[in-house]
Amino acid sequence: MTYCLAMRLDEGLLFMSDTRTNAGVDNVSTYRKLHVFRPDDQRLFVLQSAGNLATTQEVLDRITRDLTGPGPSLATVDHLFEAAIYLGELSAATAARHEATLGTGATATFILGGQVGTDPPDILLVYPAGNYIRASDDVPFLQIGEAKYGKSYLDLAVRSNAALNTAAKIALSSMVSTAVANLSVGPPYDIGIYDRDSFELRHARIDGDSPYLARLSATWSEHMLAAVHALPSLEPGDIQVLSPDHD
Amino acid sequence: MTYCLAMRLDEGLLFMSDTRTNAGVDNVSTYRKLHVFRPDDQRLFVLQSAGNLATTQEVLDRITRDLTGPGPSLATVDHLFEAAIYLGELSAATAARHEATLGTGATATFILGGQVGTDPPDILLVYPAGNYIRASDDVPFLQIGEAKYGKSYLDLAVRSNAALNTAAKIALSSMVSTAVANLSVGPPYDIGIYDRDSFELRHARIDGDSPYLARLSATWSEHMLAAVHALPSLEPGDIQVLSPDHD
Repeated sequence: MTYCLAMRLDEGLLFMSDTRTNAGVDNVSTYRKLHVFRPDDQRLFVLQSAGNLATTQEVLDRITRDLTGPGPSLATVDHLFEAAIYLGELSAATAARHEATLGTGATATFILGGQVGTDPPDILLVYPAGNYIRASDDVPFLQIGEAKYGKSYLDLAVRSNAALNTAAKIALSSMVSTAVANLSVGPPYDIGIYDRDSFELRHARIDGDSPYLARLSATWSEHMLAAVHALPSLEPGDIQVLSPDHD
Repeated sequence: MTYCLAMRLDEGLLFMSDTRTNAGVDNVSTYRKLHVFRPDDQRLFVLQSAGNLATTQEVLDRITRDLTGPGPSLATVDHLFEAAIYLGELSAATAARHEATLGTGATATFILGGQVGTDPPDILLVYPAGNYIRASDDVPFLQIGEAKYGKSYLDLAVRSNAALNTAAKIALSSMVSTAVANLSVGPPYDIGIYDRDSFELRHARIDGDSPYLARLSATWSEHMLAAVHALPSLEPGDIQVLSPDHD
């Protein structure tokens, strides 16, 4: 599996990816799943990938080759949604070529984020079929891969109106709690921070044994345990001995 | 779907079940998924169910009929694991009778907890195939149905060495966070509290609009937002502009 997430905030965009790949628990490796393309100084694209590793690598290679070719590419699209369509076509076509031998196991799912010219920065999810959706205004984040364990943290980022740097800490917390629960998600973690109109991506790679991660976990732990201590008690009148019955 | 959980603590056992059933999002109903059997004053069994509603109801009806019959039943078993084997056989046989028409869609999964005589209280998970596992010493809880969203709360209960009443609050928090994320899990919620050697189950039913639930959520929210505020910042030296590349 994989866990990648992206958030759209007023100040810009936030990306977080794990790096674990596996072909079974006895065959685990580390690959970057956060990629950046900057065809010129008015276009920045960030790609996060989940799914078949061979398909994602071929798609990335084709994107790179297309940048200097005559056809459509990330250097020619005028809007982010056009990049999503282009990426979706590449991805679906690549998976289709392997369908006879691999079935649906060769598909990949992407998050595509970034900014093109004067359009606002945005994040889109590109499905294996090649179609896409964007993050909503109410839920301005996207997840691919193992999305369930860490989702509540992202809700929290939205509820707290987090700024970009705070969102990065929350996203990392979401990642760590997912990695604890699912062995197929693991460190190091790649954080990408995109400041609106900057057309460059600030990046940090966090190792699993980083002292920073330990401090982050300790802070959560401290506040969660304090919350447990403060939880209100059930009203004694609400609790009654249950008669055996079978409804 | 469904979400049921059970915890084994020094003081006794804790059970929590939602009540939502559905046959599609346009056909939603409320059924108890927490059941108690007390064949005599030295045997208490708690059953939680997930899966096909017809199968779980038939299994419960058969268990009830067997209590007064000549064959094996919850009134005759000497240990909890024997009850798990008995339940597993009933469940697998019931599902098998519907397999021709329903395929694997007729299966059910159960958590069976309780105490028989002088044996310590315990919780076991009975699979659709009829086999069972018990909760481990390191992870003394079990979940069936939608287990992912609420799992971190149960880890927290273990880490904080929660007493039975505190565990009940944590379990309810786990339930609420699951119901927020998955529409097929919903209130009212049934809490069962079993005090070791009591051979009776204390029970509370919590409605979705209960003021208690609102206070519980507010307490979490307050402490989570405080945690967000307190999270340590990434070292500025750890963040660098990422060059476009394709490894």
